[in-house]
Amino acid sequence: MELRPSFLREQRVDRILLGHGSGGRLMHELIKSQFSPAFGIEGSGDSAMVNVPSLRLAYTTDSYVVTPLFFPGGNIGELAINGTVNDLAVSGADPLYLSVGFVIEEGFLLSDLKKIITSMSSSAAKAGVKVVAGDTKVVNKGKADGIFINTSGIGVLQDGRDISAARIGNGDKVIISGEVGSHGVAVMSERNGLTFDPPVTSDTRPLNSLVEAMYRVSPKIHFMRDPTRGGLATTLKEAALESRLCIRINESSLPIPQGVRGACSLLGLDPLYVANEGILIAIVDAMVADDMVNSMKRHEHGRDAAIIGEIYDTPQGGVLLETAIGGTRIIDMLQGEQLPRIC
Amino acid sequence: MELRPSFLREQRVDRILLGHGSGGRLMHELIKSQFSPAFGIEGSGDSAMVNVPSLRLAYTTDSYVVTPLFFPGGNIGELAINGTVNDLAVSGADPLYLSVGFVIEEGFLLSDLKKIITSMSSSAAKAGVKVVAGDTKVVNKGKADGIFINTSGIGVLQDGRDISAARIGNGDKVIISGEVGSHGVAVMSERNGLTFDPPVTSDTRPLNSLVEAMYRVSPKIHFMRDPTRGGLATTLKEAALESRLCIRINESSLPIPQGVRGACSLLGLDPLYVANEGILIAIVDAMVADDMVNSMKRHEHGRDAAIIGEIYDTPQGGVLLETAIGGTRIIDMLQGEQLPRIC
Repeated sequence: MELRPSFLREQRVDRILLGHGSGGRLMHELIKSQFSPAFGIEGSGDSAMVNVPSLRLAYTTDSYVVTPLFFPGGNIGELAINGTVNDLAVSGADPLYLSVGFVIEEGFLLSDLKKIITSMSSSAAKAGVKVVAGDTKVVNKGKADGIFINTSGIGVLQDGRDISAARIGNGDKVIISGEVGSHGVAVMSERNGLTFDPPVTSDTRPLNSLVEAMYRVSPKIHFMRDPTRGGLATTLKEAALESRLCIRINESSLPIPQGVRGACSLLGLDPLYVANEGILIAIVDAMVADDMVNSMKRHEHGRDAAIIGEIYDTPQGGVLLETAIGGTRIIDMLQGEQLPRIC
Repeated sequence: MELRPSFLREQRVDRILLGHGSGGRLMHELIKSQFSPAFGIEGSGDSAMVNVPSLRLAYTTDSYVVTPLFFPGGNIGELAINGTVNDLAVSGADPLYLSVGFVIEEGFLLSDLKKIITSMSSSAAKAGVKVVAGDTKVVNKGKADGIFINTSGIGVLQDGRDISAARIGNGDKVIISGEVGSHGVAVMSERNGLTFDPPVTSDTRPLNSLVEAMYRVSPKIHFMRDPTRGGLATTLKEAALESRLCIRINESSLPIPQGVRGACSLLGLDPLYVANEGILIAIVDAMVADDMVNSMKRHEHGRDAAIIGEIYDTPQGGVLLETAIGGTRIIDMLQGEQLPRIC
């Protein structure tokens, strides 16, 4: 008696059913037909077994609730992989392993799930990380909004890499790796049925190889963060508050694409508070800043890298923007919510 | 000029706002006032830095969508900690670090969030694990169901511990650590406004110290899993399919509490398919089975441990239940969905 074949019988369904989250046969089918092949996951234990080459790890988690799920330049799946890869990368770590947790609304189209999983699989391959653990829950129709994805990630930290606001010092330079505002504008334009010329597409991409290129120039990277929710302004304000120093930014040096400027003015948004998914801020020793920017410019994800500002002692915790017309604007954190569910 | 005080100004809100997920000031407030103190999280980088004592790790993730959020014997927060601790423990690993990702519906009561976080904090302390990374997203009212929680976890694997269906052999004994069906019945009774005498409460609890006690008896533990969604039946079927052996269970040896039997008969449920959150199945070398059960019985979370069955060569992939009246019932995986959103 061989009891296996019936278990593998093909399920002819095109929508997610509550049973896909049951822990039973439908869920096993979904895992075997979709998740395991996409991520190359073998085995079905309660945990993945992984080997790491260092005892010093970086560990992070993020949930993704972006709406709409598909937008110019990407979808929620790519975002969920790249976002967690980037959180590890800007911590100075080399991202190795990810976990993926899906919460799916009953009735969600299996074809959309396949598109999302395919994007996740190819994003993971591009970033050089492996998805090793997963979970799927299904909630009743109307109790979620299509799909929410959580990813967590493990990276290893090489000796001598230390990213911390405490390392920021007077005279350090502030580097940005690329153009500001594309992700938020791409999602908002999709939400509002707008198109821009030139079109604005999300900047979602993995930054780990760019960070490696930066470390090849020098380990004197004191602080790094990717300005996602809350945008560039909030990230700079966090750095200023945590370091108890002052950041002065030169507005005219900020790389803001024409499409983002136009869209922000139309939508009533401030590009400094718009979410990004493929750029980073680095605060580095002034001596290495120029070489680092030059090296970044040669990397496909750092072509628009620029020095945008400098660290001063006072006002403590302040971020000051020197505007193009010679004024000074005080930059604070995002208040309330400019763009809900942008990532 | 010191810009900090306004940032720390107290927020007088009793419900979650969209802005709590913005990445801006409200989110920083929520993290500083609730999450950081509860979990003892310091710093605010994009990743937590952790040290592990071994290069061989177990890594897992799970999302929790249980409804209702509070039920007899526990709530979604305890479940989210214990469930991930247990996934690591039954993989033979010592759980060390967890991440927590919240997706919260706008308007969710801050007082309920505090209760959940307090439970998570005390569950983590009981299990001896540390929550080191977190994320909060807020979605519009009606786009989620109160709160969903994802946890992922890292554990370390001692040498010589190897949990794998491939290690299961003919003649091995099947051990269960405790009573069957309590979690599912507790949640279903809360959902249906029923109370039972004696009351049935969820069995949610951390199993890592029980597993350590088992390993102190012998490393000849071939397979372990916690029978959550899909229940005992589905877990046994997975073990049989993965090992290509047959599991025979003796129905009369199954510890099913009177309250669970009564509730299942009233609610039309089969206790073998009801979710558990605080028991494990272990398949062990027959020579060590009795000693192991005796040791488990002395542990607070293994008092009802019992040998419930044995491994045979055929029928391959089969699970057979020898019933109390002398018949044999073929056990299959859960089909469709018996109890949606039980964990």
